[in-house]
Amino acid sequence: MPISLGELATQFGCELIGDPDVLVGGVASLPNAGPDSLSFLAGAAYKKQLSSTKAAAVILSAGDADESPVAAILHDDPYACYARMAAVICPPPIYKPGVHASAVVASSATVADSAHLAANVVIDERSSVGENVYLGPGTVIGPDCIIGDDCRFIANVTLARSVEIGDRGVFHPGAVIGADGFGNAMTPDGWIKVPQLGGVRIGNDVEIGANTTVDCGALDDTIIEDGVRIDNLCMIGHNVHVGAHTAMAAMVGIAGSTVIGKRCMFAGRGGAVGHITVCDDVTVAAMTFLSKDVTTPGTYAASFPADDARSWSKQLARFRRLGKLIERVTKLEKGGESSSD
Amino acid sequence: MPISLGELATQFGCELIGDPDVLVGGVASLPNAGPDSLSFLAGAAYKKQLSSTKAAAVILSAGDADESPVAAILHDDPYACYARMAAVICPPPIYKPGVHASAVVASSATVADSAHLAANVVIDERSSVGENVYLGPGTVIGPDCIIGDDCRFIANVTLARSVEIGDRGVFHPGAVIGADGFGNAMTPDGWIKVPQLGGVRIGNDVEIGANTTVDCGALDDTIIEDGVRIDNLCMIGHNVHVGAHTAMAAMVGIAGSTVIGKRCMFAGRGGAVGHITVCDDVTVAAMTFLSKDVTTPGTYAASFPADDARSWSKQLARFRRLGKLIERVTKLEKGGESSSD
Amino acid sequence: MPISLGELATQFGCELIGDPDVLVGGVASLPNAGPDSLSFLAGAAYKKQLSSTKAAAVILSAGDADESPVAAILHDDPYACYARMAAVICPPPIYKPGVHASAVVASSATVADSAHLAANVVIDERSSVGENVYLGPGTVIGPDCIIGDDCRFIANVTLARSVEIGDRGVFHPGAVIGADGFGNAMTPDGWIKVPQLGGVRIGNDVEIGANTTVDCGALDDTIIEDGVRIDNLCMIGHNVHVGAHTAMAAMVGIAGSTVIGKRCMFAGRGGAVGHITVCDDVTVAAMTFLSKDVTTPGTYAASFPADDARSWSKQLARFRRLGKLIERVTKLEKGGESSSD
Repeated sequence: MPISLGELATQFGCELIGDPDVLVGGVASLPNAGPDSLSFLAGAAYKKQLSSTKAAAVILSAGDADESPVAAILHDDPYACYARMAAVICPPPIYKPGVHASAVVASSATVADSAHLAANVVIDERSSVGENVYLGPGTVIGPDCIIGDDCRFIANVTLARSVEIGDRGVFHPGAVIGADGFGNAMTPDGWIKVPQLGGVRIGNDVEIGANTTVDCGALDDTIIEDGVRIDNLCMIGHNVHVGAHTAMAAMVGIAGSTVIGKRCMFAGRGGAVGHITVCDDVTVAAMTFLSKDVTTPGTYAASFPADDARSWSKQLARFRRLGKLIERVTKLEKGGESSSD
Repeated sequence: MPISLGELATQFGCELIGDPDVLVGGVASLPNAGPDSLSFLAGAAYKKQLSSTKAAAVILSAGDADESPVAAILHDDPYACYARMAAVICPPPIYKPGVHASAVVASSATVADSAHLAANVVIDERSSVGENVYLGPGTVIGPDCIIGDDCRFIANVTLARSVEIGDRGVFHPGAVIGADGFGNAMTPDGWIKVPQLGGVRIGNDVEIGANTTVDCGALDDTIIEDGVRIDNLCMIGHNVHVGAHTAMAAMVGIAGSTVIGKRCMFAGRGGAVGHITVCDDVTVAAMTFLSKDVTTPGTYAASFPADDARSWSKQLARFRRLGKLIERVTKLEKGGESSSD
Repeated sequence: MPISLGELATQFGCELIGDPDVLVGGVASLPNAGPDSLSFLAGAAYKKQLSSTKAAAVILSAGDADESPVAAILHDDPYACYARMAAVICPPPIYKPGVHASAVVASSATVADSAHLAANVVIDERSSVGENVYLGPGTVIGPDCIIGDDCRFIANVTLARSVEIGDRGVFHPGAVIGADGFGNAMTPDGWIKVPQLGGVRIGNDVEIGANTTVDCGALDDTIIEDGVRIDNLCMIGHNVHVGAHTAMAAMVGIAGSTVIGKRCMFAGRGGAVGHITVCDDVTVAAMTFLSKDVTTPGTYAASFPADDARSWSKQLARFRRLGKLIERVTKLEKGGESSSD
């Protein structure tokens, strides 16, 4: 919805250099922005795009204001400011309250009058849906779930059972929360299933990506604290505890019973083995997994970036001869003669 | 459902030390158990929790019985015993037979009278559903599928087509079984699809995790034998054969046409390349993939646990200088003087 | 549908050695083929199966024709020829046009008369569905999507919103296209969501595997060009651009804003970090990720195949002593005496 630069600046407490009456109706990147779009400059790599932008205005830090060819909105953190303003200019869709004729709501379930249940939504026994919640098409809410206010389930999300969610959560398609944890006991006759009896508790302001799975606990609950962000195709095992404001990029896996601290960040395909404790403020590099407790904040890594395959093949051979190399050095240290390896 | 310690001990042939008339109505971990809960001690790490437990009774091995402050149920394998008793005390939900009004069953499909089809279930042509099967909301059974007795599909499971399943299987939300294998032939005009014409055959007592995919075979069938346990977000490629009682933790991937033996175990994010054969009783460590036939039972690994990122960066540099190091050692062996590297 | 060898040979311009009137009604591998099945020989590894085949005919290269015990269809690329002939002999199912009574189509959506919408399909506002499209059970087409002609959505596919798809695409169950990209800005109060406002544009002849996710762009669109093949459980981040005829095996992940060239191939669990550019004709080995721009076509690798766990453990220890080893060599070069490491 169109809004004036002046209103935006006032609403978010920013200084505006330019005409406050200009209206913006959209947002765009610096090169693609037109005269009715707001843009932003965050990161030195994009600075070269600034001089030729045709945006109505650019959000940038005070130090860059002089170089803007158009109106400037000043903010110390232009990206965060952009995120907030974009949500005003391009708000998420608003849904009228109501339950689609094809939705199926169990008799013991409760749904707030202000909620919107789209086509083919199913809500099972004893579950409750809070105010202004949007449940997109095909979403299944199993038994004994509690969904707080203002949550959005885009489509085809599944809460298996016993999932409790706070307010303002966003759940993307294919996410599965509250499925049984992987608990099996080996016997002479093969595996027997260990009943998974805990649930999942999710705080406020949590976002869970498409096709991500968060399993229920074996006895106690799996816990995701406030403000956690989890991308697509991640796996949170049973009884994991993820601290507030931790973020996980796609394909991260956290094995059962591991405790992850607050404000941690996992790059794509990172992870952790089960039954460890990771302190606050730990960053894990791409394709790296933590194998033991982490007690010191910082960045952890153990991945090998791709190499030309021929070079890699040679390098692998060298790596495999390490034992031999060590022997050769030991021999040299002892004054031995040439080896033939 | 509440049951007396005496009944439990009798049913599973255990010795009970304590009052047989005490009723338990739930299960809990040692620290959280109250006087109406059964608990268990499995693993030395938990032994320190035993002395203060308030459980009604603890399942433990005879050697630990003296240390239990409460009633004791003796079993050589307390965890397996717990799994069986927990399934009695906290059984899975029972569903009344019936087909929800919103379910859609093709005219040529057959559904046992004792089966329960929840809301929005779809069953396509020529498929059959066995006795006491539970098909949760949104589950889609494509054409030409056969589902044995006592299977449970929690919700939103998809059998694409031509999937045959034995008895007592458990299928978690988002699992996709019988989708086309990845078969493509390169031509000067780009890829052309190789029709995937095989199916999937799954034995008895198999559990498949949330959002896991098991593809149909190209010509012959993909096969999962009895008692296999597969966790979430795993991928079983076309024409893979998984032997009985093999278990795969989350995010494991087995590429096409590979044969995995019986009683193998894959830790999280393990895997195997295509077209290899892996013998029985092979264990694969986390983040490790098998690249060739395995003919000897045992444990296989090839992963690097995370290190402090600065240390890792140095280590990576050292690794990359391995060729140079080998040259230096060779030079030393030949009596060469100092190198400047 | 049965077809004569003569018709097949004529239709695809192949030489036939054998009786043109023999009918084939199926396809099979060399060992399993019976007298009404067509088979093929592609790859030297299978040549030993040729002499005992009972197929009606075998597609093979001219050089192998002499060794066929049955009729031979000659083609320079037997596998590609097989793929084409198999699609004629065993065509995909044909669906009658029509909209199932349980499907829900928004008033502003348009659906071609020749399309088939199966049970519980949902089509949201302003979306359009082209000629001969098949939308399988439970498929959700969010708002503002455009689906070209002859596409097939097997079942339970989700297009979140703003997805544009060309002709002849195949989308497997659980695939999620157009969900929000992972965009978050850190603030002193925690993460705030960066609105994801772009869409996804997918070309012609694209196939997307089961439970794969392709996110919408942040501002501009995520792009998948013509002929791309993506297997199961892959992740394509926001604003990624995948060039024509690139193929990705299962569990590949491409992080945000990365540009992948044409005709690239990613083996299972390969990937690329965000914000890099990869040229045409790049092959990435299994479990390998590209960490920087690639400007030279070729194969790239960085994975360690599994080793016996005991050997690997020793090797890991050697690897960790690399710094020490380098010191020892340096000392030797300086004429130092024996070290005790």
